[in-house]
Amino acid sequence: MVSSDHVSFPAYLGVDVGGTTIKIGIVDDSGRSLAHGKIDTDHERGPEDGVRRIIDFAEGLFAEAGLNWEQIRAVGLGTPGTMDVKQGMLLHMPNMSGWDDFPIRSYLAEQTGKPVAFLNDANAAAYGEYWVGRGQEYDSLIMFTLGTGVGGGVIIHDTTLDGEHSHGSECGHIIIDSSADARQCPCGQFGHLEAYVSATSVAKRTQEMLADGAESSLQAIQSEHGEVSSLDVAKHAEQGDAFANQMIRETGHYLATGITSALHIIDPDIVVLGGAMNFGGHQTRAGRAFLEAIRQRIRELTFPVLEENTIIDFATLGSDSGYIGAAGVARKQFG
Amino acid sequence: MVSSDHVSFPAYLGVDVGGTTIKIGIVDDSGRSLAHGKIDTDHERGPEDGVRRIIDFAEGLFAEAGLNWEQIRAVGLGTPGTMDVKQGMLLHMPNMSGWDDFPIRSYLAEQTGKPVAFLNDANAAAYGEYWVGRGQEYDSLIMFTLGTGVGGGVIIHDTTLDGEHSHGSECGHIIIDSSADARQCPCGQFGHLEAYVSATSVAKRTQEMLADGAESSLQAIQSEHGEVSSLDVAKHAEQGDAFANQMIRETGHYLATGITSALHIIDPDIVVLGGAMNFGGHQTRAGRAFLEAIRQRIRELTFPVLEENTIIDFATLGSDSGYIGAAGVARKQFG
Repeated sequence: MVSSDHVSFPAYLGVDVGGTTIKIGIVDDSGRSLAHGKIDTDHERGPEDGVRRIIDFAEGLFAEAGLNWEQIRAVGLGTPGTMDVKQGMLLHMPNMSGWDDFPIRSYLAEQTGKPVAFLNDANAAAYGEYWVGRGQEYDSLIMFTLGTGVGGGVIIHDTTLDGEHSHGSECGHIIIDSSADARQCPCGQFGHLEAYVSATSVAKRTQEMLADGAESSLQAIQSEHGEVSSLDVAKHAEQGDAFANQMIRETGHYLATGITSALHIIDPDIVVLGGAMNFGGHQTRAGRAFLEAIRQRIRELTFPVLEENTIIDFATLGSDSGYIGAAGVARKQFG
Repeated sequence: MVSSDHVSFPAYLGVDVGGTTIKIGIVDDSGRSLAHGKIDTDHERGPEDGVRRIIDFAEGLFAEAGLNWEQIRAVGLGTPGTMDVKQGMLLHMPNMSGWDDFPIRSYLAEQTGKPVAFLNDANAAAYGEYWVGRGQEYDSLIMFTLGTGVGGGVIIHDTTLDGEHSHGSECGHIIIDSSADARQCPCGQFGHLEAYVSATSVAKRTQEMLADGAESSLQAIQSEHGEVSSLDVAKHAEQGDAFANQMIRETGHYLATGITSALHIIDPDIVVLGGAMNFGGHQTRAGRAFLEAIRQRIRELTFPVLEENTIIDFATLGSDSGYIGAAGVARKQFG
């Protein structure tokens, strides 16, 4: 139980829906997470059942934190997929069959009796970092979420850039290569950033180079498992493998190209890199080399004033950023 | 003299500084231009002299419109170059020696006795189109100004995207080619949109192809004048020259790549194309083919919902957009 002395009321319920798990947390008015946890998405049980289980789990969090629904002002909800933010609709949810064309905002509001703020999961994560994470001190932020795919979030002066058709901040789909041999993105188009720097893309690029005969300790992994992952690349880079280190630098350079285009449109105070695909982040030499490769390449690509002033760093909230940010947007809209 | 029956007071003075001319207009509260004109920049006479001549010219416009300074609420000022919007400073003005490091906002405010809104000229033009031009009915807009260079302006929900370091909306510097043989931009970097679709770049690309032996009626122009311009390309395309038409399509495809990256970050209602480098715009077959090439390529590059809903069209205010938009931003800030 959280001592209520330290809680800034009202509190908010933040929900971060993913294809595998749903993260749920109670967040107070200052952005402090009072209690949180996660449940399996079990998407095949459908969205109504999902909402019921979100509420059941929240009840448990209330008990844990010594709170109740009365102290919750509003609910924030971030989801993946194609959506209509203005209408509060899920439209097309890849890997979550049965959730398409569902009016999730009104259903969740009806079931909880609370107003619901609804937005894209990557924008929610960006808002979390902006509110109480790495971007806390700044007025505007771009976040790239590097995972299986690449998400993007843009916050300008406390407002998420949702876009007019719910496709704002899709930074994973910035075009970084318009040549004829550009890589295909999972979205079907070519040359998008995601096709170069997602965990899937890093693995694919690495495997192609290994198949072409690259000299590397990763060859043994490729032989044994028939594939390598971005985690393998991080591990072998950390152990000093030159090829793995080169893959990390190259990934940093691709990312820098996308970041630079975003800088030249948004010109934020800070760019934060979230998601698991960070080669270890600040904790490892490989992760630090990744960040340095990005910063170095941006310095080569951008204007002097941005080169000197724009901060590029890893995110700090980890996988909590989504539900915290969703709660933060609920606070902004209904607090 | 404008009949005061039709004027919505207060009015605003809009100033659009360029390297060659300064456009100046009196704009009423509804966005109507009551009187306008232009003076030579004569930059070598320095910014204090420039401000004095702006004010002198404005006095003439007042006489013409039957107005006086009392009816002017504020002044809006758009300038090119590198600036510090927050501080109201010109920092580095290429082609306008003597204007560097000048506190133009406070100086103009002091000399006019009016509050001054200061911003980038391309953002001012975008605000003009947003307020009373092609974007009038919409909530958000991106403008690409195609001229000697490529300017960019982004308006989201009535706010210009100035950026934290006065480098927001620099859409001419979106990277569209990250390959080793990418073209160099006048800013010094490589692969930027401006290096492909400015009037200068179109002329250069065309001349290179002609030197490589492209079969075209433009060869005669190249032989006679030693160069061709983007206007020549438009003219010969209009006369049916296949190569000139191909250059226009190719220019449209490059532009579409940059526009698509911007769409995937901003997701606006509308993208407008301003500036003189439009191959004739809606008035000519060549201009319409240019627009259709852009639209077609964007359809190939973007998401279905944006392909169906985002409007791509030429701007409507011509060279008036800058001073009208500057006046509009003054109205927003001080009206």
